[in-house]
Amino acid sequence: MAKTVEEKNASHKRSMEKQKTKVDAKIEEASTERGILLLLTGNGKGKSSSGFGMVMRALGYQQKVGVVQFIKGVQLSGEELFIRDKHPEVDFYQMGTGFTWDTQDRTSDIEAAERTWKEAARMLADETINLVLLDEMTYMLAYKYLDEEIILSALKHRPYEQSVVVTGRGGGSKLIELADTVSEVKEVKHCFKAGVKARKGVDF
Amino acid sequence: MAKTVEEKNASHKRSMEKQKTKVDAKIEEASTERGILLLLTGNGKGKSSSGFGMVMRALGYQQKVGVVQFIKGVQLSGEELFIRDKHPEVDFYQMGTGFTWDTQDRTSDIEAAERTWKEAARMLADETINLVLLDEMTYMLAYKYLDEEIILSALKHRPYEQSVVVTGRGGGSKLIELADTVSEVKEVKHCFKAGVKARKGVDF
Repeated sequence: MAKTVEEKNASHKRSMEKQKTKVDAKIEEASTERGILLLLTGNGKGKSSSGFGMVMRALGYQQKVGVVQFIKGVQLSGEELFIRDKHPEVDFYQMGTGFTWDTQDRTSDIEAAERTWKEAARMLADETINLVLLDEMTYMLAYKYLDEEIILSALKHRPYEQSVVVTGRGGGSKLIELADTVSEVKEVKHCFKAGVKARKGVDF
Repeated sequence: MAKTVEEKNASHKRSMEKQKTKVDAKIEEASTERGILLLLTGNGKGKSSSGFGMVMRALGYQQKVGVVQFIKGVQLSGEELFIRDKHPEVDFYQMGTGFTWDTQDRTSDIEAAERTWKEAARMLADETINLVLLDEMTYMLAYKYLDEEIILSALKHRPYEQSVVVTGRGGGSKLIELADTVSEVKEVKHCFKAGVKARKGVDF
């Protein structure tokens, strides 16, 4: 026999009461207040944009934000225009060399990576900065352009209240272990493969 | 025998040349210019923030953006503050009822969902809007608060140049099929489970 609307409503209320008790207990348990290290990895679309969404959240609370973009910066991007034109209060640095397959020059890539890392290290030592986004930094580790131990140590010894978001495919087991929260963005499908061009305001 | 730096550099250059040829060919193939439908689903952290990162990109190009937040709006959030205080040019609407386990009232939830959907439908019919973010809309489908066919039809018949981002767990096979790009954000680990409190500027 099909449920009446009243029965549906009552069963909905019971199940929601149960869920609320569970959620409230979890919130109660979570009591440590400190900055977190978040890693957004995987092969799917949405990692960098997720980092920039957190930048938006932090700016909403008038927090101080630092952004370092590894790799990107040859092609113009919406996030770059937005931060430069509308939010110059963000401490913003771009490596600006493009992808490794654009430069095809390992020596200059390493120099650029090291120059860029200096800016990241400065931010990771600045306790006035609430949130640091290290966009696409994992590639610097994957290509061994930067020393993993130096990076992990800087992340570990950052100010207690500072949160950091690292994006990019891979990242390595040590970074995953150090991170408080790790999300893997998996590609289920991507329109690029169906011949649809990358699009302003969504893809870049 | 270990490679010399010169050998490493030369082999790097060869491999990058090969990769560039591949990437360029793919870019060449992708020729269709149109708005896309992007679904960000899965149980991991970063879906809504990814949608807001795309809002940031679109604003960087002076595009017109619409945002509808299903569920959220009882608790204050960084993205809400940011858009309301700094970017009132965004067409922004919040359902404002909180989670289903907070309201525990199916009838009023459905009314709120329908009222909120009207705003979404208006945006999906407005060709002056370049990007529409339907944040956490999948839950309206999962709870059957909204009619799936009506939603799919509105998405399908939206302006050709308009891009739409839908976020939230699940979404259903029909929405996945309709979407051009689908990313599944998987939780690898979450600090909440280790007792770390949700944090301003990162989590909300």
